[in-house]
Amino acid sequence: MTESSKDKIKESARVELFSDGVFAIAITLLVLELIQILHPKTEIDLVTTCLKHWQSFLAFFIGFITILICWINHHVAFEFIYKVDTKFMWVNGFLLFIVTLTPFPTAILAEYLETESTVALAIFGFNYILISIAAYGICFYAYKHHLISEEDRHFFHSYSLIYRYAIYFNVLAFFVCFISTWVALCLYIILFSLFATPKELTVRLEKIRLRKRKKSKYKKAEELEEGTKV
Amino acid sequence: MTESSKDKIKESARVELFSDGVFAIAITLLVLELIQILHPKTEIDLVTTCLKHWQSFLAFFIGFITILICWINHHVAFEFIYKVDTKFMWVNGFLLFIVTLTPFPTAILAEYLETESTVALAIFGFNYILISIAAYGICFYAYKHHLISEEDRHFFHSYSLIYRYAIYFNVLAFFVCFISTWVALCLYIILFSLFATPKELTVRLEKIRLRKRKKSKYKKAEELEEGTKV
Amino acid sequence: MTESSKDKIKESARVELFSDGVFAIAITLLVLELIQILHPKTEIDLVTTCLKHWQSFLAFFIGFITILICWINHHVAFEFIYKVDTKFMWVNGFLLFIVTLTPFPTAILAEYLETESTVALAIFGFNYILISIAAYGICFYAYKHHLISEEDRHFFHSYSLIYRYAIYFNVLAFFVCFISTWVALCLYIILFSLFATPKELTVRLEKIRLRKRKKSKYKKAEELEEGTKV
Amino acid sequence: MTESSKDKIKESARVELFSDGVFAIAITLLVLELIQILHPKTEIDLVTTCLKHWQSFLAFFIGFITILICWINHHVAFEFIYKVDTKFMWVNGFLLFIVTLTPFPTAILAEYLETESTVALAIFGFNYILISIAAYGICFYAYKHHLISEEDRHFFHSYSLIYRYAIYFNVLAFFVCFISTWVALCLYIILFSLFATPKELTVRLEKIRLRKRKKSKYKKAEELEEGTKV
Repeated sequence: MTESSKDKIKESARVELFSDGVFAIAITLLVLELIQILHPKTEIDLVTTCLKHWQSFLAFFIGFITILICWINHHVAFEFIYKVDTKFMWVNGFLLFIVTLTPFPTAILAEYLETESTVALAIFGFNYILISIAAYGICFYAYKHHLISEEDRHFFHSYSLIYRYAIYFNVLAFFVCFISTWVALCLYIILFSLFATPKELTVRLEKIRLRKRKKSKYKKAEELEEGTKV
Repeated sequence: MTESSKDKIKESARVELFSDGVFAIAITLLVLELIQILHPKTEIDLVTTCLKHWQSFLAFFIGFITILICWINHHVAFEFIYKVDTKFMWVNGFLLFIVTLTPFPTAILAEYLETESTVALAIFGFNYILISIAAYGICFYAYKHHLISEEDRHFFHSYSLIYRYAIYFNVLAFFVCFISTWVALCLYIILFSLFATPKELTVRLEKIRLRKRKKSKYKKAEELEEGTKV
Repeated sequence: MTESSKDKIKESARVELFSDGVFAIAITLLVLELIQILHPKTEIDLVTTCLKHWQSFLAFFIGFITILICWINHHVAFEFIYKVDTKFMWVNGFLLFIVTLTPFPTAILAEYLETESTVALAIFGFNYILISIAAYGICFYAYKHHLISEEDRHFFHSYSLIYRYAIYFNVLAFFVCFISTWVALCLYIILFSLFATPKELTVRLEKIRLRKRKKSKYKKAEELEEGTKV
Repeated sequence: MTESSKDKIKESARVELFSDGVFAIAITLLVLELIQILHPKTEIDLVTTCLKHWQSFLAFFIGFITILICWINHHVAFEFIYKVDTKFMWVNGFLLFIVTLTPFPTAILAEYLETESTVALAIFGFNYILISIAAYGICFYAYKHHLISEEDRHFFHSYSLIYRYAIYFNVLAFFVCFISTWVALCLYIILFSLFATPKELTVRLEKIRLRKRKKSKYKKAEELEEGTKV
């Protein structure tokens, strides 16, 4: 059983292909829930029907953004990952499982946003916790098992960290749901805008950490200096 | 974080892959609305059932052509685009959002063409405005941020212009919907036939602009000559 | 606007990609009609429910085989085609249109095979006529516009011929539907088994034509000889 | 009709592409059955609705794992397969047929697990028998017709053997369904965990066979020695 590095590139490509397929379908299936609002055809006119189901449109929009952000983050991670092994396919499979499931909480949001907004949002929030765990899992596994090239190792470590913070953030937002849906919504909007551009987020995070380290070094140096003075 | 040009080619390929998936699914989901006309099974015979739902067939046809034209135009644009960045993925994501949404106005067309033709067509027309904005956005961003090779720059500029004109055209057609559905339909047929072959359209546009420029040069030259004569 | 041969290979690849997506989705959507038989849940036990809907299973099977054969034939044709132009995308788009539509006649078959077998089969047969026209269209266009490499030209000509014969065959089978559904079914089974392996069919066809030509040459030679004798 | 080895690599790639599409769609369609539980909207609150339909969630989970394992095994097999012929596409098509069908037994599981658990599980088990036959068929055909590179031949033979054992295992589990659903479920969990990592399973199997062979050699050597002694 010989495997050249070329085969491994091909291997990673097929995992991307399959994942892309799942993302693309999950994102497109969302419209089926939207079409649902036209059936059964009622006596009410078209514009009123659409306005009455504004939650369905909102849910479609949220579901779409959610899966698109997932895909963009998955895409950025796979820019670095060039090898795969069978266990990694299971870690990736867990992410796909959550992505495939996403139309379900989206449908819940569409149907229950008016009557049971707290529970509906909490279920969606729980979905986000699972997504961030899966995303962190992919990065953690790829980092630990050297599925990335050595030169990207340092940056990829910072990259995987943003998903660890995302888990904490999502757990927090999940509990906030039960206190105030509006505050929770704001937290999710912040989350969305941060993870819309994951590479830029990582770079920003690296800068903050660098500054902190410099500061602490400076402090230490100052203390040392003071120590020598005293 | 090192990125060779090879990685960037791969990057653009995956955006195409994901987009192709979304296009392919959106175009295939249209048939679900068509199958709908067979449920619930009535006592009416098959041929009568089909004839009674002629709008569903028309809507399927229009929806299919719409998404196919979108795909062809997307395809031609990506012949030039070989680099991507995260913001571009969001611009492309906006187009995919509209494409994913397209089965919804198609379903509306199928259900309401007979009873509320004006509103149904206007919603479809609004969809076209969004599509043309998204298409122009993709070309404009790719041109501005140099995601295309330098040698294609001039042609790509002309190419992106056809989508700007498409926005004006679609806004016009949208308002015409409320005056006369038949005139609006004719406008949309013209739009379809123009954007069926976007490359040829661009070449034709370039020729017209070239001729104009020559004319104006000729005029200026004439005026200059006349000026010197006087 | 410069285009190297490399770009053209990429171009053909993306048309394949999109087509593969459409084929894959159309073939998988067929199961939705099958799941339909479980809703609404009745008091009847599972096995009886399945047996009662044997036409749905048959329709699923026929639909699947139809699209799989289409895909295999499309695949073989694209082994030769390496260039594409915008008009070709429309010819290919016509085939995809029919493929996308295929779940509809399949659903008709499932619902109306018992009550209106003739009409249901004829609609399916009409679908086959369109498929064979589209397949011939693709091959004819690719042959005429030199989208294939020169060395394959001769074989590809024979290959495109089998789809011309398929059109005649399908038109015949379509009219036979109205006379006898059983004879028509037999004709379709023959069609399936022939186009299951299109390359082998072409090779066989070439041999027959070669033998005929040899025979006629032999005859002419004989006649010539006889002529000289006389 | 000339075909270089390069064309054959491309050929195998497109079969993978199409298969990936089918896998991705089949796995994503499962959620539609899950969304079904929200329609028609009842007076019962959201949490109760979800809890009442626990079988739908279980079925979604089982269906997802089933198709993911199929995909992983398909993926590993295609790491070795680099050539395809038309007959192989039919063997592969048979696997895709079963994969496409899988949402149906999954839907049965969701609807009938409470009322007719034995029959529902047996139908799912029958699906597994077909899957293992198809998987063995693919490996057997690829091995026999030399669609794999010569250096992988030995390993691939062992690899194909695990699917032959899977057929026996699945037939056994199928009949156990009618005796005890719980024992059958345990058997399926064992099956899942074994085929989750098919490469590792093959390596383990090879070791066992090697040890056996060594033992038998040792025995023979002992017997020979004893023979010479006597």
